[in-house]
Amino acid sequence: MILRIDRLQTELPPPSDPDPEGAAKVQELMGGRFGEMSTLMNYTFQSFNFRHRQGARPFYDLIANIAAEEYGHIELVAAAINTMLTGASDDDQAPKAALEGARNAAVNPHHFIAGGLGALPQDSRGMPWTGDYVFSSGDLIEDLTHNFFLETGARNNKLKVYEMCDHPAARALTGYLLVRGGVHQVAYARALENLTGANLMKLFPSPRIPTAKIPECQPFLKTGEDRKLYRFSPNDYREIIAVFNGPHPETGEELIVVDEAPEGAPPNDLPPQPAVFAPSAAPEEIVEIAQKLRLAAGLPNEPTGVVANDGSGLIGKVKNKLT
Amino acid sequence: MILRIDRLQTELPPPSDPDPEGAAKVQELMGGRFGEMSTLMNYTFQSFNFRHRQGARPFYDLIANIAAEEYGHIELVAAAINTMLTGASDDDQAPKAALEGARNAAVNPHHFIAGGLGALPQDSRGMPWTGDYVFSSGDLIEDLTHNFFLETGARNNKLKVYEMCDHPAARALTGYLLVRGGVHQVAYARALENLTGANLMKLFPSPRIPTAKIPECQPFLKTGEDRKLYRFSPNDYREIIAVFNGPHPETGEELIVVDEAPEGAPPNDLPPQPAVFAPSAAPEEIVEIAQKLRLAAGLPNEPTGVVANDGSGLIGKVKNKLT
Amino acid sequence: MILRIDRLQTELPPPSDPDPEGAAKVQELMGGRFGEMSTLMNYTFQSFNFRHRQGARPFYDLIANIAAEEYGHIELVAAAINTMLTGASDDDQAPKAALEGARNAAVNPHHFIAGGLGALPQDSRGMPWTGDYVFSSGDLIEDLTHNFFLETGARNNKLKVYEMCDHPAARALTGYLLVRGGVHQVAYARALENLTGANLMKLFPSPRIPTAKIPECQPFLKTGEDRKLYRFSPNDYREIIAVFNGPHPETGEELIVVDEAPEGAPPNDLPPQPAVFAPSAAPEEIVEIAQKLRLAAGLPNEPTGVVANDGSGLIGKVKNKLT
Amino acid sequence: MILRIDRLQTELPPPSDPDPEGAAKVQELMGGRFGEMSTLMNYTFQSFNFRHRQGARPFYDLIANIAAEEYGHIELVAAAINTMLTGASDDDQAPKAALEGARNAAVNPHHFIAGGLGALPQDSRGMPWTGDYVFSSGDLIEDLTHNFFLETGARNNKLKVYEMCDHPAARALTGYLLVRGGVHQVAYARALENLTGANLMKLFPSPRIPTAKIPECQPFLKTGEDRKLYRFSPNDYREIIAVFNGPHPETGEELIVVDEAPEGAPPNDLPPQPAVFAPSAAPEEIVEIAQKLRLAAGLPNEPTGVVANDGSGLIGKVKNKLT
Amino acid sequence: MILRIDRLQTELPPPSDPDPEGAAKVQELMGGRFGEMSTLMNYTFQSFNFRHRQGARPFYDLIANIAAEEYGHIELVAAAINTMLTGASDDDQAPKAALEGARNAAVNPHHFIAGGLGALPQDSRGMPWTGDYVFSSGDLIEDLTHNFFLETGARNNKLKVYEMCDHPAARALTGYLLVRGGVHQVAYARALENLTGANLMKLFPSPRIPTAKIPECQPFLKTGEDRKLYRFSPNDYREIIAVFNGPHPETGEELIVVDEAPEGAPPNDLPPQPAVFAPSAAPEEIVEIAQKLRLAAGLPNEPTGVVANDGSGLIGKVKNKLT
Amino acid sequence: MILRIDRLQTELPPPSDPDPEGAAKVQELMGGRFGEMSTLMNYTFQSFNFRHRQGARPFYDLIANIAAEEYGHIELVAAAINTMLTGASDDDQAPKAALEGARNAAVNPHHFIAGGLGALPQDSRGMPWTGDYVFSSGDLIEDLTHNFFLETGARNNKLKVYEMCDHPAARALTGYLLVRGGVHQVAYARALENLTGANLMKLFPSPRIPTAKIPECQPFLKTGEDRKLYRFSPNDYREIIAVFNGPHPETGEELIVVDEAPEGAPPNDLPPQPAVFAPSAAPEEIVEIAQKLRLAAGLPNEPTGVVANDGSGLIGKVKNKLT
Repeated sequence: MILRIDRLQTELPPPSDPDPEGAAKVQELMGGRFGEMSTLMNYTFQSFNFRHRQGARPFYDLIANIAAEEYGHIELVAAAINTMLTGASDDDQAPKAALEGARNAAVNPHHFIAGGLGALPQDSRGMPWTGDYVFSSGDLIEDLTHNFFLETGARNNKLKVYEMCDHPAARALTGYLLVRGGVHQVAYARALENLTGANLMKLFPSPRIPTAKIPECQPFLKTGEDRKLYRFSPNDYREIIAVFNGPHPETGEELIVVDEAPEGAPPNDLPPQPAVFAPSAAPEEIVEIAQKLRLAAGLPNEPTGVVANDGSGLIGKVKNKLT
Repeated sequence: MILRIDRLQTELPPPSDPDPEGAAKVQELMGGRFGEMSTLMNYTFQSFNFRHRQGARPFYDLIANIAAEEYGHIELVAAAINTMLTGASDDDQAPKAALEGARNAAVNPHHFIAGGLGALPQDSRGMPWTGDYVFSSGDLIEDLTHNFFLETGARNNKLKVYEMCDHPAARALTGYLLVRGGVHQVAYARALENLTGANLMKLFPSPRIPTAKIPECQPFLKTGEDRKLYRFSPNDYREIIAVFNGPHPETGEELIVVDEAPEGAPPNDLPPQPAVFAPSAAPEEIVEIAQKLRLAAGLPNEPTGVVANDGSGLIGKVKNKLT
Repeated sequence: MILRIDRLQTELPPPSDPDPEGAAKVQELMGGRFGEMSTLMNYTFQSFNFRHRQGARPFYDLIANIAAEEYGHIELVAAAINTMLTGASDDDQAPKAALEGARNAAVNPHHFIAGGLGALPQDSRGMPWTGDYVFSSGDLIEDLTHNFFLETGARNNKLKVYEMCDHPAARALTGYLLVRGGVHQVAYARALENLTGANLMKLFPSPRIPTAKIPECQPFLKTGEDRKLYRFSPNDYREIIAVFNGPHPETGEELIVVDEAPEGAPPNDLPPQPAVFAPSAAPEEIVEIAQKLRLAAGLPNEPTGVVANDGSGLIGKVKNKLT
Repeated sequence: MILRIDRLQTELPPPSDPDPEGAAKVQELMGGRFGEMSTLMNYTFQSFNFRHRQGARPFYDLIANIAAEEYGHIELVAAAINTMLTGASDDDQAPKAALEGARNAAVNPHHFIAGGLGALPQDSRGMPWTGDYVFSSGDLIEDLTHNFFLETGARNNKLKVYEMCDHPAARALTGYLLVRGGVHQVAYARALENLTGANLMKLFPSPRIPTAKIPECQPFLKTGEDRKLYRFSPNDYREIIAVFNGPHPETGEELIVVDEAPEGAPPNDLPPQPAVFAPSAAPEEIVEIAQKLRLAAGLPNEPTGVVANDGSGLIGKVKNKLT
Repeated sequence: MILRIDRLQTELPPPSDPDPEGAAKVQELMGGRFGEMSTLMNYTFQSFNFRHRQGARPFYDLIANIAAEEYGHIELVAAAINTMLTGASDDDQAPKAALEGARNAAVNPHHFIAGGLGALPQDSRGMPWTGDYVFSSGDLIEDLTHNFFLETGARNNKLKVYEMCDHPAARALTGYLLVRGGVHQVAYARALENLTGANLMKLFPSPRIPTAKIPECQPFLKTGEDRKLYRFSPNDYREIIAVFNGPHPETGEELIVVDEAPEGAPPNDLPPQPAVFAPSAAPEEIVEIAQKLRLAAGLPNEPTGVVANDGSGLIGKVKNKLT
Repeated sequence: MILRIDRLQTELPPPSDPDPEGAAKVQELMGGRFGEMSTLMNYTFQSFNFRHRQGARPFYDLIANIAAEEYGHIELVAAAINTMLTGASDDDQAPKAALEGARNAAVNPHHFIAGGLGALPQDSRGMPWTGDYVFSSGDLIEDLTHNFFLETGARNNKLKVYEMCDHPAARALTGYLLVRGGVHQVAYARALENLTGANLMKLFPSPRIPTAKIPECQPFLKTGEDRKLYRFSPNDYREIIAVFNGPHPETGEELIVVDEAPEGAPPNDLPPQPAVFAPSAAPEEIVEIAQKLRLAAGLPNEPTGVVANDGSGLIGKVKNKLT
């Protein structure tokens, strides 16, 4: 089972100019064959189906733990897409640009019709993610070979989306995911080396562009995010250190296991978009009901959740009304 | 992001007689339109796309927190399917019955060919789960209406699978999921009542079979699992108490928020199935490598992971060999 | 079985400026998960599969009769799409604007390649409608819960398409469908209330925009189309009056059963589009053959079908040629 | 638009021994590429998209009118499937054989899980019907060529299902559909001949088995159903006589247009199946509510609908209870 | 089995201005229901499944031989798409126009993300080709009826793509395919005539536009490509002459069997596109390795393959570096 | 383009006892994600999309040439499936066992309904092959990584099908394909080693079962089929020798390029199956027409095609009739 923490694994910029064309492209990183739904669900099912876990514990722990990190990745991709589909301010509750973009441009019509300017489990063509993207043969060497290939394809697609989108949220997202995806690529290569002796480190980088050349990756290289594997569990998956060690194939620096999850950052509270009824055509109605329910339940005056921005626009208005 | 805990939300029986026919049916609860992949991903995307969270915090917390519980549900369904596809002992490493069942019977051929006798994100027809099963309109009332309907359909399907399968793992699974699904059905109905005033409690139970009549639900009714909403987070989602309260529609007992995750139970370590190469055609090879890597990493002699059964069969043999 | 009447349920404007971008969006109301193919086929299959009809006759009649109305809705959506893909005149047989729009713009390429500038059973992404959109559990309360949710989602999508398209045909279409969809939403809510006692009327309107605020709905509100349920059968489905009665949830006015189908309006006869070979690259050839066949069969000189416009352009030319 | 008549186009036998294996096969005639959903929707969309109807009226009328008949065909296929999935009596409300068949045998699991022992828009593999089965090019000659091929494929599949199933309902169904499908095959061939001069009558029969050799077709050959085209409209589609005339390709007898719909037969009222909650796990509850609503609405004591069998089982019990 | 020849069946122009919008449309001719993947795979499977080949040899040979030609057609479509997605020169290794087109315009995003500016087995919507497009009933007359219809639909789609695209590669492609597709249409019509006596030649042309009116078809009409059936085998399929003979339905000229494959033309060697890592972000690295491997294997100094253009850009640079 | 040779790459046994259950399983090797349609189409598209072929010629030649071999593999899989669906003799034209198997057993119903007892581009679930199984990124290293993984998954599935089926045709098929697939696995590993230096040979065998342990592989190991790469072209792809060389990873024996295609074997001429109309319900009608056409075209008395068995059953009867 999981515990959920209401923070993003890395900071994303607040909404600025909406970019529905870009958001449609970023969907590939969500619901494409090599998107984060695929990495999440491949490793999740492989961990669920892992037989003789005790006997092969370090490998089980590795796959199960990376699966946990991937949940944070679909969360980040969704946050970036939502950000790119948002107008800059909740004072202006129907940001014209976003609406017109989503309505008229050559973009995913489902962002407007089905998604309420939100992310969907679809790829850049608007095609839904499918369970047939999951490979879980049960054969450990084969699953790891797959995972190495999957991360390679994922790196390719992240680079492509990086090139196609220059919205700050897309760039922050891909800069981070390229670094973290690289860590997983290394982890699976190391696991295969340990099991077979094949020196897969020579395959890096694939595609042939070192992360060091990508400006948006720099902040994460400085803090060593390219060689750390976090342990995403209070008490479990301790044996990842048996596999994730040795030098990084590109930099030669030592790989590190960090014995806890990253600190992360609070998400932005994105403003309502009443034109798509998100969260309502009359959002202040919900705010008012929510406020009453909170008080009745003995909760404090201010929302207990932490967000990056103020996020209190409508709340303030409603409070004034209630008092 | 999430933290992962290597325990199941409830106890499942160890493998007994394999039941590939039943396992093919249980897949509906994994990858069907009303399966746990659907509940997980619907609530996950709705939480990702939730706008003005601060203003509507109790509702955001409710959806986000139930999403977290659902991850544990796909884990349970997978564990049940794996159990039903397993022979009873790892001494007999190629349980004939399971193999012949999976090979010859009128069951999902992918359990043998693609899945290594493991669970897959497919339904009972063998069709993959698709992202188009996700409804995330951004309109809170509409999303909640959907969620209430989704849980109703899910309850129907759990009852059907309960009727179709008498394998102990399927029965334990559906007994538990019927109770927990009922809680979510109530939670969404309550949220809708709070937002609109509609007294949806009158719709219970749907289908018209009270959980109290199902023997496998009894253990969970005794401990009140039918009226508890657990908080699956170290620090977040505290405002669920603002929505989940009042009397249970069927029993009249008070709904309760439990301020932590359930204790759960360790999973069974399922034996290798070399005939499908899971985790290898020569599993002792992996065990040996794993043991060496563990020692090199300074890990203790015994695996650090906790499992319900002994699970040490092959490990012992390998240790003897290493010493 | 059915009898077919060659009239539309409401009047649509004749072709004006073509709007292929809009037509691609309107496809969601045809082949989307919440489009009219879905409402038609859900209620059709539920009526086909309805067990113990005699015992539950009013509910059977309700679902079967609404299914009949929905056939007229797919017809209307198709007519709107065809209108939006048409040039204004059959004198100008290859309307440049339409062609260039369909050819070059970011629209559904199948409108040009597969559809001959006609409607297709696809959604706004160009993805085909699928039978898996049909929910027919056989459980009456559950099917009605589904239908209420389906109409809610359909209302959302109609509002979205209304916002995205300002072509007169799209506006006339959505104005009408919003009103009629609202009637079905009420009908299913009433049926659920009757069966369970839940006061679902409080859920209206969903989304939170009253139909009264939408200009294109006005003509239909004036004639009370928002509270009439027509009986689409010469002799059957008489028991709908047992369910569809009481006050309208938004206006408080009494719901009414009209004991026959609406009068409707003749369709426009849309001009040939020879550039896409519809009905031919040389349409006058067909007209000539048709005219000869009509005469040989003893049919009158003029076509027996009734259309809204003249529609005789090519016929005149051919007649001159024949005489 | 349409008017719906609550009768089947031909009589089907009442339920006897359930046959879930056969029902799974018959689904091909519902939702397969060449099933009745395909014929219905192909002709429906072709009629919706037909340009210059006045100029080509006889061909428009032909396609539109056959579309209307096809609605009755999906109804018949559904009725046959429901019949084959039913136990023989509503006194025995959970017919063991049907349940065990549907539960355990190698059949479509969705008949039990998703369909409540009812028909679904799926094929014999359980795969959903898709809008991509619709061909509507707008080019009249091409659409007719397609329709001729579609009816040929449909005839093939009906023969195959005839061979695979010996349940009386499947045999009655295929006997009837083979004859009626043959009429449509002839109609489209005639239309093509009229437009081009190609003597397609030489292609009959395809496959090379004359309908006259199939016992279950005999009753319909005797009444000439193989050469009659019914007009399924109160007032429209009168010009079909301009195309559907001349000798039948196999018998040489004259083709006939019948100026009204066939009389048909009332459907059987199939008994509840409480084990799948159809229409409820407690059907008498629904019957009681229905009866009250009927009386409140001033409807007569007995249900107004006409069914082939008595169908009053539960009603009687409830009436006794009410009085 | 097959032998492969590294030549195209006809000459295509070298890259000029890139045209990603057009390339997205041409995909319909690759992966659409009526694209070349469909013709290839339909005839291939029909030949694989052909029973009693000796008894029906001329028909088997006809289908098997046309299948062989179709492989060359998917190759041509792929070459045209690649050409349209390419910048004009490999000196300018990241042709801005192509990139910006593919990145920003309303085109298939997979051309950039998944395809490396290459062709994919998708249609113009970006939807993948599916095996369900294959019709292989085993019934010879029915399969031929299908094939005639398939070629008719294919001709329609080629005409549509011809109209939608004016890139020289698209025009050269469609000009050629229209002529060759016409030959196959005739071949299947002839086969049906031989088997049944139906004079299908009267159905030509369908759509009603003679190939002679299309400028880009002229070069191929001059050399009689519209009436030649090539034999694509060193020794087999000799009995096609028993079916493919008689007059061409449009021109009256005699049909001809050519007893070998056409000469064809060498393909253009398309320049690297490092921005999409095709064949690498650092292509000179690959060239250098390739050159070394060639020399080590005793191959001549120059590549042994023949291409239409020089194609030696990078090779020269690398050679200078190696010496 | 290609030339087609009417021979199989290896000999298959003639039909014996039909095995529809097995045939349904073998479909995975045809249309599954790792089936031969996938290997064929992946390498075909990669060769079509290969940029700067001259500069990277040895790698282009390798991929293009293996693509050619794969065509022969889909042919072999189809032949095996057809064989397994056939009765043993054409004297007994409706082999009861096959029919009843296909009709009644829990197998792919499309083998009977859609396929005329022939192979289809579907997997073992009956789901169609899809173009989304093709990976063609244009990045050479990444495509090769994919291909190595694809061959690994294919080897897994061949081993599984080997275990599940003991029909002689399935065993002969998988014995051969395991050996040839192994060659391709080695070829792609070698290519990657050459490009990057990674010693992938250590990954063999995967799964961990040496081909040498499989009896049905023995005949092919004896003749060295496990280390030969055939050149499937009259004149092209000569540079494969630059990559395919060095020792075999399992045996250490030298890899060999054979400068021509293998000799192969003639296919069996499978008997008609009139019950599924293949090639007709009245096959002798076709044989008679074919014979007349052959004579009219000046072809010799006996069919020119070569088959493994006599195959003249019906021909003889017809000849007697004609004389």
